[in-house]
Amino acid sequence: MQVQEEINATQANQALFVQMAVTLWDGMNKRVDKLIDELTDEQLAAETAPGRNTGTYLLGHLAAVNDGLLTLMGWGERLHPEMDEPFLKTPDKSGQNFPPVATLKEYWKTINAELGKHISAMQPQDWFTRHMSVSPEDFEKEPNRNKLNVLMGRTVHQSNHLGQMQFLSPRK
Amino acid sequence: MQVQEEINATQANQALFVQMAVTLWDGMNKRVDKLIDELTDEQLAAETAPGRNTGTYLLGHLAAVNDGLLTLMGWGERLHPEMDEPFLKTPDKSGQNFPPVATLKEYWKTINAELGKHISAMQPQDWFTRHMSVSPEDFEKEPNRNKLNVLMGRTVHQSNHLGQMQFLSPRK
Repeated sequence: MQVQEEINATQANQALFVQMAVTLWDGMNKRVDKLIDELTDEQLAAETAPGRNTGTYLLGHLAAVNDGLLTLMGWGERLHPEMDEPFLKTPDKSGQNFPPVATLKEYWKTINAELGKHISAMQPQDWFTRHMSVSPEDFEKEPNRNKLNVLMGRTVHQSNHLGQMQFLSPRK
Repeated sequence: MQVQEEINATQANQALFVQMAVTLWDGMNKRVDKLIDELTDEQLAAETAPGRNTGTYLLGHLAAVNDGLLTLMGWGERLHPEMDEPFLKTPDKSGQNFPPVATLKEYWKTINAELGKHISAMQPQDWFTRHMSVSPEDFEKEPNRNKLNVLMGRTVHQSNHLGQMQFLSPRK
């Protein structure tokens, strides 16, 4: 009986920290949603600071990174692999054609809806399995290279760029 | 025996998750260290973008937030509670006197060294206890209001401002 309680307690903790990490991820994506909903297309297309990345580029960049999670997590095929070239492999203002802002916003939402489906289907212990860019052998030695760590790292990455995109809002 | 293995596995996951979150926190603080070491005092005192917070304000803000962790985590007295007024309670450019940049940098490092000592002394399960701003009764209902969640939230907050402070570096 005591053993069963110990199992329950540790399993509850595992479910709890997965929930903490997923909540942080969801919250960050919602903050980006809110910001891009508030900005006009012109505001979003502007530079975040003089000579720095535009909001359009950063939105495409974040959408491409999120799209990449589909394969990295082993959840399925990517929806928009064509975004890697303009938004991951080349810097802003390098002559790449960007989709219109409205299209980018739609991609952002579609990709996140798809991710959400897979995230809800994950059991706590699934998050501690390897991501697809680490071999089973390396994962054996480095169990921190799991799916949950990827999600946490991506949350922090997104926060970094959201901080920059916040400069697109008019000053109060 | 199988039961014991299950307990061991979930406990190992708990330790692993704490390590993942602490590594992310440490990494974020190191990135701020690196940036402020690279910037001259003049660069750090500049606005991150026209009309936005200065680097000095953001450094003071992040240092004050980190200092606040000492009491929030129940680790001890704050080292620099006097930083709340200029860096948390009032916005930048509101006429507050800031300590010189060299002093702020020193505070940042001293505070983080102090936090590091407490962090290393924490056992994995300690991170799942309540932080000091939630009552035992509320914590019973909302176990996500634990110390580890605070650390994760602060990591994301710091990343947001680091993204902005990166604009203080000269453009390449």
